[in-house]
Amino acid sequence: MSALSDHAGACTLSFDALASLLEQIFLRHGTSSEVARTLAENCAAAERDGAHSHGVFRIPGYVSTLKSGWVDGQAVPVVEDVASGFLRVDACNGFAQPALAAARPLLIEKARSAGIAVLAIRNSHHFAALWPDVEPFAYEGLVALSVVNSMTCVVPHGADRPLFGTNPIAFAAPRADGEPIVFDLATSAIAHGDVQIAAGKGELLPPGMGVDSLGQPTRDPKAILEGGALLPFGGHKGSALSMMVELLAAALTGGNFSFEFDWSNHPGAKTPWTGQLLIVIDPSKAAGQSFAERSQELVRQMHGVGLRRLPGDRRHRERSKSNERGITLDEQTIAQLRALAGQ
Amino acid sequence: MSALSDHAGACTLSFDALASLLEQIFLRHGTSSEVARTLAENCAAAERDGAHSHGVFRIPGYVSTLKSGWVDGQAVPVVEDVASGFLRVDACNGFAQPALAAARPLLIEKARSAGIAVLAIRNSHHFAALWPDVEPFAYEGLVALSVVNSMTCVVPHGADRPLFGTNPIAFAAPRADGEPIVFDLATSAIAHGDVQIAAGKGELLPPGMGVDSLGQPTRDPKAILEGGALLPFGGHKGSALSMMVELLAAALTGGNFSFEFDWSNHPGAKTPWTGQLLIVIDPSKAAGQSFAERSQELVRQMHGVGLRRLPGDRRHRERSKSNERGITLDEQTIAQLRALAGQ
Repeated sequence: MSALSDHAGACTLSFDALASLLEQIFLRHGTSSEVARTLAENCAAAERDGAHSHGVFRIPGYVSTLKSGWVDGQAVPVVEDVASGFLRVDACNGFAQPALAAARPLLIEKARSAGIAVLAIRNSHHFAALWPDVEPFAYEGLVALSVVNSMTCVVPHGADRPLFGTNPIAFAAPRADGEPIVFDLATSAIAHGDVQIAAGKGELLPPGMGVDSLGQPTRDPKAILEGGALLPFGGHKGSALSMMVELLAAALTGGNFSFEFDWSNHPGAKTPWTGQLLIVIDPSKAAGQSFAERSQELVRQMHGVGLRRLPGDRRHRERSKSNERGITLDEQTIAQLRALAGQ
Repeated sequence: MSALSDHAGACTLSFDALASLLEQIFLRHGTSSEVARTLAENCAAAERDGAHSHGVFRIPGYVSTLKSGWVDGQAVPVVEDVASGFLRVDACNGFAQPALAAARPLLIEKARSAGIAVLAIRNSHHFAALWPDVEPFAYEGLVALSVVNSMTCVVPHGADRPLFGTNPIAFAAPRADGEPIVFDLATSAIAHGDVQIAAGKGELLPPGMGVDSLGQPTRDPKAILEGGALLPFGGHKGSALSMMVELLAAALTGGNFSFEFDWSNHPGAKTPWTGQLLIVIDPSKAAGQSFAERSQELVRQMHGVGLRRLPGDRRHRERSKSNERGITLDEQTIAQLRALAGQ
């Protein structure tokens, strides 16, 4: 691994060097080589793209989960071909990303042939950002939508106590003259990882993000993490979308709802054991001008009304910067990662 | 038509009586009998269910649009069978509801066979609530999602000027021991019809709903309607979803974006000329316990954390009340409707 110390307290690594270091960590904590590579690349990509709450920040959580025996790092996903547009995967208590990788070629084939296809992953653990699951489909000229439920930490609008997970929705679509249009949004007012990061830094959150253990509004991230809960974004509308994510990602896959799993016998477990749904559409079946040209026109018009930043723009800027100059991590983080890798 | 005057200034009609009155209005303004029946039942159902912003309140808009020659009330939709999971309809400048009705049997057949199917409607006018388009699929045991774009009146988050429509998302799912779970939410902070109703009543809106013609925040519904614009719900997240609706309902159907049609030569035209997308999934293809039992369990747990009202509950309560006691309208409205029907 080549790490260049560029200034006091910080190190710069190439994407491959970071992915390789993370792969060693996963392998050393009992995953198969397939799972190690998939998760390492996923996590390094989030760090590369500036999505720090889903980058190397997640590694200690992965490690403690693997140590706890909660997840099977050796699981081999079982793909079930149910109908011309319907695929299922039993992730067998393993991670969701290798389950998606196993089904991906057939999913793309079905989407191109039927015009639309759905992938229902169950019995899976998703601990990463969701956009890396949809973005690759857009590079293939396809439109993709994915939802994943997580763990009880969001109070449904109008309820007293938490029930839903942060339940993100991610979407990707190709466009003619630029990077795909991609967004990934938690249906909670704030992502759980961002609350953890704020707690670590001792920062207050903006108002309206969460409640304390008594159900009272709070801006203290620690009060949210210690017995409190998050609120949905956008009031009853975000809450309805979060409910939809529970139905699609759990009820429609055969996975657990966010409130159904019990990890109390696995201290250190951090990864929600739920389900994930992906819908992939082939826009070449649509009428009229090519989809990618139409989406390009929408982007052009969005810029025309004064929008400077599209969803995903910051990620692409960070990605370019990282590809050019490398990924910068502080020395303490690097040392921690090396120790976990046994280096 | 039987209308019972129940107290001073109000009349009560049965659903059939209201639908029949509305049908006469559509027929008298040049629609085919098929279109008249479809739109009349849709509009009467909204009124019956207490969705007043999409009930008889919409009739003058339908009438002025038909008079303007903007929409073809006689259009016969053309269904195109593209792939095992992909259907298209050219609504031929007619209304979206007859286009959906024409494609519905084949859409259900495809969803049951392929596991998922998509219906892409283009060249269509949607001036109604969206939940009536998805709810019937849930009664067939299917899960349905629909999006429709409308007309430029929402400022994308971070932009200066409006571009998107109110772009609603509607979802319906069956459940074992009760009415389907159904929601229909505008991705704008408030529905356009509700702004019009508030303007009519001279009421102020809650903060955060819209801006005036100078782009400044305002609570005055008239300032929003006269050169102002709406904001998306939930900041950048609602804005991203609204963008997704443009892509799915217009780019993926071959329909117009919300900013693409020009009705300036048709004074009185009110119906956006865009597109609509429906995705229908057969949950019997899912693994595990039946979907309807799982969704019932989610509802049970939502009540368990203190949620008193589910999305759609108010609609079902209003529907029961209307079915029992009839639909109440004020005498002025009834007189107006009768005049439009030529009675």
